[in-house]
Amino acid sequence: MIFKNTVGIIGGGRIAKVHALTLRNHFPGIKIKYVSEPYITPQVSEWVKEYGVENLVEDADVMLEDDSVDCVFICSPTPSHCDYVIRAAEKGKHIYCEKPIGSNIPEVKKAAEAVSKAGVSFLMGFMRRFDDNHTKIKQAVESGVIGTPNVIKMVSRDPVPPPIGYTKTSGGFYFDSMVHDFDLARYYTGSEITEVYAIGKARIEPELEDMGHIDTAICTITFDNGAIGVIDLCRKSGCGYDQRTEVLGSKACIQMENVNEGSVIIRNETGVIGEKPVYFFLERYEKCFVNAQKAFFESVNSGKPTPVTIFDGLQSLRLANAAQKSFEENRPVKLSEIE
Amino acid sequence: MIFKNTVGIIGGGRIAKVHALTLRNHFPGIKIKYVSEPYITPQVSEWVKEYGVENLVEDADVMLEDDSVDCVFICSPTPSHCDYVIRAAEKGKHIYCEKPIGSNIPEVKKAAEAVSKAGVSFLMGFMRRFDDNHTKIKQAVESGVIGTPNVIKMVSRDPVPPPIGYTKTSGGFYFDSMVHDFDLARYYTGSEITEVYAIGKARIEPELEDMGHIDTAICTITFDNGAIGVIDLCRKSGCGYDQRTEVLGSKACIQMENVNEGSVIIRNETGVIGEKPVYFFLERYEKCFVNAQKAFFESVNSGKPTPVTIFDGLQSLRLANAAQKSFEENRPVKLSEIE
Amino acid sequence: MIFKNTVGIIGGGRIAKVHALTLRNHFPGIKIKYVSEPYITPQVSEWVKEYGVENLVEDADVMLEDDSVDCVFICSPTPSHCDYVIRAAEKGKHIYCEKPIGSNIPEVKKAAEAVSKAGVSFLMGFMRRFDDNHTKIKQAVESGVIGTPNVIKMVSRDPVPPPIGYTKTSGGFYFDSMVHDFDLARYYTGSEITEVYAIGKARIEPELEDMGHIDTAICTITFDNGAIGVIDLCRKSGCGYDQRTEVLGSKACIQMENVNEGSVIIRNETGVIGEKPVYFFLERYEKCFVNAQKAFFESVNSGKPTPVTIFDGLQSLRLANAAQKSFEENRPVKLSEIE
Amino acid sequence: MIFKNTVGIIGGGRIAKVHALTLRNHFPGIKIKYVSEPYITPQVSEWVKEYGVENLVEDADVMLEDDSVDCVFICSPTPSHCDYVIRAAEKGKHIYCEKPIGSNIPEVKKAAEAVSKAGVSFLMGFMRRFDDNHTKIKQAVESGVIGTPNVIKMVSRDPVPPPIGYTKTSGGFYFDSMVHDFDLARYYTGSEITEVYAIGKARIEPELEDMGHIDTAICTITFDNGAIGVIDLCRKSGCGYDQRTEVLGSKACIQMENVNEGSVIIRNETGVIGEKPVYFFLERYEKCFVNAQKAFFESVNSGKPTPVTIFDGLQSLRLANAAQKSFEENRPVKLSEIE
Repeated sequence: MIFKNTVGIIGGGRIAKVHALTLRNHFPGIKIKYVSEPYITPQVSEWVKEYGVENLVEDADVMLEDDSVDCVFICSPTPSHCDYVIRAAEKGKHIYCEKPIGSNIPEVKKAAEAVSKAGVSFLMGFMRRFDDNHTKIKQAVESGVIGTPNVIKMVSRDPVPPPIGYTKTSGGFYFDSMVHDFDLARYYTGSEITEVYAIGKARIEPELEDMGHIDTAICTITFDNGAIGVIDLCRKSGCGYDQRTEVLGSKACIQMENVNEGSVIIRNETGVIGEKPVYFFLERYEKCFVNAQKAFFESVNSGKPTPVTIFDGLQSLRLANAAQKSFEENRPVKLSEIE
Repeated sequence: MIFKNTVGIIGGGRIAKVHALTLRNHFPGIKIKYVSEPYITPQVSEWVKEYGVENLVEDADVMLEDDSVDCVFICSPTPSHCDYVIRAAEKGKHIYCEKPIGSNIPEVKKAAEAVSKAGVSFLMGFMRRFDDNHTKIKQAVESGVIGTPNVIKMVSRDPVPPPIGYTKTSGGFYFDSMVHDFDLARYYTGSEITEVYAIGKARIEPELEDMGHIDTAICTITFDNGAIGVIDLCRKSGCGYDQRTEVLGSKACIQMENVNEGSVIIRNETGVIGEKPVYFFLERYEKCFVNAQKAFFESVNSGKPTPVTIFDGLQSLRLANAAQKSFEENRPVKLSEIE
Repeated sequence: MIFKNTVGIIGGGRIAKVHALTLRNHFPGIKIKYVSEPYITPQVSEWVKEYGVENLVEDADVMLEDDSVDCVFICSPTPSHCDYVIRAAEKGKHIYCEKPIGSNIPEVKKAAEAVSKAGVSFLMGFMRRFDDNHTKIKQAVESGVIGTPNVIKMVSRDPVPPPIGYTKTSGGFYFDSMVHDFDLARYYTGSEITEVYAIGKARIEPELEDMGHIDTAICTITFDNGAIGVIDLCRKSGCGYDQRTEVLGSKACIQMENVNEGSVIIRNETGVIGEKPVYFFLERYEKCFVNAQKAFFESVNSGKPTPVTIFDGLQSLRLANAAQKSFEENRPVKLSEIE
Repeated sequence: MIFKNTVGIIGGGRIAKVHALTLRNHFPGIKIKYVSEPYITPQVSEWVKEYGVENLVEDADVMLEDDSVDCVFICSPTPSHCDYVIRAAEKGKHIYCEKPIGSNIPEVKKAAEAVSKAGVSFLMGFMRRFDDNHTKIKQAVESGVIGTPNVIKMVSRDPVPPPIGYTKTSGGFYFDSMVHDFDLARYYTGSEITEVYAIGKARIEPELEDMGHIDTAICTITFDNGAIGVIDLCRKSGCGYDQRTEVLGSKACIQMENVNEGSVIIRNETGVIGEKPVYFFLERYEKCFVNAQKAFFESVNSGKPTPVTIFDGLQSLRLANAAQKSFEENRPVKLSEIE
């Protein structure tokens, strides 16, 4: 099916560019009428032109006021997400919103109400949900092939830490990174997490500790359905993007191993040397952006709900808050304590 | 870089469709002005329209006569390849030709002369050469990381046999399939194969044997540089597209393992169950079509030679002839015996 | 070197049999003069005879009083360990004691004093420390090849739960099983664990929950050297003995994968099916008993200390107590809170 | 079951020592009454004493004349095998004979007749047949789990070449090494090889070529049951003992991967580095000697035939002759041409 929609993209950064390229290469019927970016650099001008975007504007209001735009992609900095969601919803536009949904729970609730009231399609950009491997884990749990899920384990390690400047303004490791894992844990199991206990350290860059930041974290999780689990994260894997999952069920254990750069191995005096994991999330999840956009446009054009809602964004934010509180107070924290 | 060329595609079958889709999704500056197909079905009309091709014609002559077309993709049945190559070259058009180049050595030589005389770019569609994994094997041999290459092994097994009707007209297993492996063996080593010995059986479909056909084959190869090797093929792997390579050098051994459908494993009472190989060559080599087209347009626009020439097509054809002769006469055959 | 010692084995159960067979097959100079077992069954009589043991007695006192016995292997039920350690030490006999050392911390301290005072060799039967794979992990940490260790992860899952009768008297999952993992975590890192937080459920046999028992557990651990970690255990893996380790360092990550039953794989329509892990600890750690006995006799005959002391037994017992307390009170517990 | 037999070992070299140690550690009821060795070195004296052998003699006649010896293990140099087989058989002694059975076909036939006439147990020391992994391949073929076997592939590569002095007197690569693979091919399939075609080179030590020797070989094989296959060998793997097998059936493909030194992997900037294969055949096949001896004594004490007969020795010798002839004449050779 060829979708015929008109899109505006709010934001001109890296993730906006990924969306624009994906739209151009995989959705020939979609027109990108606007990209808005307050700080227009030559780089932005260049890709906007190369990808066939019709207008590059400074102010997102232009596209919000343009009735021919029926879909907006919110790729601006996190603090602005909820405001744009509310305004786009009020204009009746369908919304694809990058993660995280925000950092303030009451604001997110207002945005959720606005989306609900407007009845527009909303897709929360947890792109990992659209990955074949993660989806096979979910399907295995659902189908019963592993029996009742009892233990859920996730590990996610970046190749290298981000610049310290970024880390300082990132909102913290639980908000910036672990939200993805909280979301996947809910996705795999179809069950809510009710309690967390988080420990963490600044092991890679000890100077972060004084700023109240960490780069190595472990968080135990307890699910409503009785399963238990643990997530561990680190800003430095030593080897690329190390991201694995494991669900132990009453009958079998299912694992998602890393996606490596290729299938070549060398056997020499040192050992049997396989290829390392792909470098980072853009390489790992390239295809997911196509799948997520497809799901979005299917919802937009059919009126059926998307598979990842604003409520999913809210829940992962609440869990990040619980983890942060647990870390600060060194005690298990129930989700019910949060807001 | 955005290439600006005008393409005509000769043939409207499966591989033509793959090329058209790849051109549309990855080369926004390329215009597909024609697809020619003598037997226009509704399916052909549909994809031609969907992929934005400007004209669907019955006769390739239309595009050969159109001076605005500077590149042709030859995707017609094998017996017509050489004729189209000659005519396109005479019109000064650059040529991307699907494999095999032909089945008649003198014809191929004439085509090669025409290409050479016209000075056009020519890319022989051995798309496996544009695969990252195969290329890593070649690079490991070249770089010396495995030492001197001594043994080259290749295995290639299709998921299921083609329809018997196809097999009958395929020219035979060595021509239809092993040409790819002969080409890769030359690619990996940068050395010519000087002698082959081939055995074969109709093990999957014994009824083929009476028609002089086989579906299971092993061929030993001797290289000009002193290395030896073996290729084994089968029309049925039992598990998808099973295609692996191994080069044993004086210092180390390098292998290309299968590319599997994903990275999920289940550990249960039966064993540790990983995912099977991707289904067939279209899944396995999807990205290679992009890379091959890129190499073609780079040659077209720079005037530099392509990495796979019509001579490569000729050599693999000669090797297929040698293998067939070896099989028929049950004796080793030197390449110098062929033509 | 051929050791010439005279051994008495206290206990006639499964582990005593393993030790006797290992002694007979690998230490031809060692004489097993006694096995003591209060409940002598025909099965015990049979293996004792087959393995060339000279005397089968009901009361361990006989061997403790026999001056020709210089080494005792304590393989009796856990509650009797400390008492036998004290009595054997007082008689000047060298001691190989099966794990766990006991369940009562003051008793273990007394036993440790007795061993220290007598100056005899004592080897705590944490046989995993004598496994090549575990030892490679330790060596990698020590050598610096992975950089500073930051995250330590261990998983250990039995093939099937023990009989409920056993579980009831086992002292609990943390005491019965997790002691091994606590010991390994200390072994790998050379650092003490200072705090734990444990959660657990009876997921495999829910009826255990009413008896205060669990069969699925996760325990986060914090080390004195700043590293953090997590151990997860389950009484049922679905696939044999699933026991893996991972240490993430600042430069690289090292993992110990399962030891499988063989190296055969089948590739069919279902997938790529490798062999499952070996069934249980006897299969997995068969060789370790040889290595541990060798280390013991080397200490006995050289006077140098063994690599696993009674202090290691004490520390793992304290950690099990801390984990149990954490589980009961749902809060992190410091090791310093224990005794 | 405890076997009570009296053994004499002819030869005092490496393989004799392996048999003596295996007998001592695993068969407590077996008495080794003699080892005979014409050139008694201090090393031989030492192990013979350490392993509890009663008599070390220069001349094997002593044990052949001693009626209390019911079993002999022939571990002397190959040219003497047949003579000892004949003499031991005439004395009614059961025979475990190391491979290869000999190098002269008529002699082997005479030895086979002697064994048959005497009605003694005879086990040909193809120890790989007693390996669990190889046996699983055979069982998979027999059980039909892979369907009809169509392609059999074997690779075997030593860690380093033997001293050139050894190679010169080894009888050649096909006799010295490929006999094992010919035997396994027959074992897996239960079918005779009817034709071979062999190529080979001296790639590792080019100076061998002038002496008529090779160190790198490929041999295609055709089976009586219609299957085809290929064996490739090299004296240098670059990584330990690289020995793998693959049988492609009509339904599935089964493979035996290498047995590696352990299950530890490191993931760093270079890649994912697993452990290399165990060093050589003694490490790889350590357990097989136990299994082979067990099978031998079971036959001796039950009167039932052993699983590997002198006919198996003869067939592999004939196949080595065929391969050598094929190599020399560069043409396929039928087994029926040999003798």
